[in-house]
Amino acid sequence: METISIVLASRPEGMPGREHFRIEETDLPEPEENQITLRVLFLSLDPYMRGRMSDAKSYAKPVPVGGVMEGEAVCEVLQSRSEWFKSGEIVRAMTGWCTYAVVDAANVRHVDTHGAPTSTALGVLGMPGFTAYGGMKVIGRPKRKETVAVAAASGPVGSLVGQLAMRAGARAVGIAGGKDKCDYVKSELGFDAVVDHRSPTFSSELASACADGIDVYFENVGGYVWDEVLPLLNVYARVPVCGLIAQYNGPGGSASDRLPANMSAILRRSLHLRGFINTEFLETHYHTFQKEIGPLVARGEIKYREDVVEGLENAPEAFIAMLSGGNFGKLLVRVARNG
Amino acid sequence: METISIVLASRPEGMPGREHFRIEETDLPEPEENQITLRVLFLSLDPYMRGRMSDAKSYAKPVPVGGVMEGEAVCEVLQSRSEWFKSGEIVRAMTGWCTYAVVDAANVRHVDTHGAPTSTALGVLGMPGFTAYGGMKVIGRPKRKETVAVAAASGPVGSLVGQLAMRAGARAVGIAGGKDKCDYVKSELGFDAVVDHRSPTFSSELASACADGIDVYFENVGGYVWDEVLPLLNVYARVPVCGLIAQYNGPGGSASDRLPANMSAILRRSLHLRGFINTEFLETHYHTFQKEIGPLVARGEIKYREDVVEGLENAPEAFIAMLSGGNFGKLLVRVARNG
Repeated sequence: METISIVLASRPEGMPGREHFRIEETDLPEPEENQITLRVLFLSLDPYMRGRMSDAKSYAKPVPVGGVMEGEAVCEVLQSRSEWFKSGEIVRAMTGWCTYAVVDAANVRHVDTHGAPTSTALGVLGMPGFTAYGGMKVIGRPKRKETVAVAAASGPVGSLVGQLAMRAGARAVGIAGGKDKCDYVKSELGFDAVVDHRSPTFSSELASACADGIDVYFENVGGYVWDEVLPLLNVYARVPVCGLIAQYNGPGGSASDRLPANMSAILRRSLHLRGFINTEFLETHYHTFQKEIGPLVARGEIKYREDVVEGLENAPEAFIAMLSGGNFGKLLVRVARNG
Repeated sequence: METISIVLASRPEGMPGREHFRIEETDLPEPEENQITLRVLFLSLDPYMRGRMSDAKSYAKPVPVGGVMEGEAVCEVLQSRSEWFKSGEIVRAMTGWCTYAVVDAANVRHVDTHGAPTSTALGVLGMPGFTAYGGMKVIGRPKRKETVAVAAASGPVGSLVGQLAMRAGARAVGIAGGKDKCDYVKSELGFDAVVDHRSPTFSSELASACADGIDVYFENVGGYVWDEVLPLLNVYARVPVCGLIAQYNGPGGSASDRLPANMSAILRRSLHLRGFINTEFLETHYHTFQKEIGPLVARGEIKYREDVVEGLENAPEAFIAMLSGGNFGKLLVRVARNG
């Protein structure tokens, strides 16, 4: 039996291109004791993967050149040599970008989405959703009447950040790129305000939308949006920093040094900046997240949006487009259909 | 009766000079009901005063041009029209830079230094000491075996930061400018290591002194020291930011933009940067600070150093020198002798 996988052909400098990926066909090994064979249904594509393509020091090891691109997937169990799993069950695992995988059963988890579609286990009820949840519960801690701003507001992290803010009685101000995304954030998700970061008057529009300043800014993009947010942050503002997608492909931006001004703002306004990776909160908050948010998603009280690309071979292009905001909603690759 | 005071003659751009200050003699008004007349004994000179000379937006109002320079002093009560104070008592108050002042009794506090000299109410047992204490208790939270680094380590904030770190079982690494200060930090204060930031090999010396990385960096200088500290910060490092003296006189430094790299470090290592002004913790921690640290200072178990300049007329020069690290210990002006 063969598996098709997408490997890292070479390390990109700046924005990755199609040439940094290569499709390979290899024989799938037979599962050993306590291993299972999985058929990938949905593969998740996420901004963190850009970090794995680089060998800069980070919180996780890079993908080796020639290695299969890392990624989490929702899968069907084809064959099981573990007492924990039966064939036909739906599970999630770090299979990488491939059509089939043999993995250790210890690294596989059953999917329970409380009745919501299984694909949500990679989005609003998976790591992106948990990133929003952990960052808001532990660091952001929005209070009633406060203003919470978030960029990439139509995305899987940002959309939940805003909805959690509103559930806590705070005002949610979304930042998104383009009319369709902004309309969705305002009309579908019900954010109190939305600002298009592509607008030539973005700076003044953001200031108007945040007339009382910003108490929580959930930082998942970095770059020039941060420059406009910084002057609006109130005293004691909290800034959970979970991602900097605008900076992943190189420094870019202005040539003058903005660091001293940034540090001054942290000091003068008693700001609280806190980087985090969601795994930090797994032990303390993951169970509550699933129990609290799962039923809300299943009942439609928390909304989400998926952007599904058909076919593993289209994963590299979709991933590259995502890095420039080309997706609209949680980006997934449908690798196979169930059953 | 006359008072001599030092007023802000004009707003400096960059480093202040003697010309930005002016000495004035004025008549002292008679105290009204609930006011008291004070004779200044010790005036405290502190880096925050540079901020008050500027009209940039900050957490406190600037001193108006022509107004008396702001400052806290330890004073003797000359005349009291308040039931709370008797003449001859030693108090502290925001008199400004002057020899005599009439102030509202509600803004005056008795000095209790648990037997330590009354001047310590402006240093190790005053706002600088409390800045160290509040920042460490609430934000830094050093644990046993961790490494705590602090700049301006011979100063009133830094010296207590390091001593509190060692009392919590952590390693204290001091950064100071010049041999005398470094010797004092190592031999007198007993820090585990000290590094001279004027050394041409400062970067590698700091890395050696912090071989296990830095878990808490108490930021009170900013500028190029921060550039060398940032790469050494461990995952989950806490950075209380209470001052940026190296940046108060203008941006300076390199021309390339270090902000994106700074934000990446915050993200990748889950760093926690937190600006603070000590007043934030007054209600929750000031009483404990006095009760806990006062007796330790009085018994000599917490050490401190004062740098006393004689005569109010010498305050401007002393203040200007302090901004370049010219003082050695808590800078005080002896305005008058007691009795």
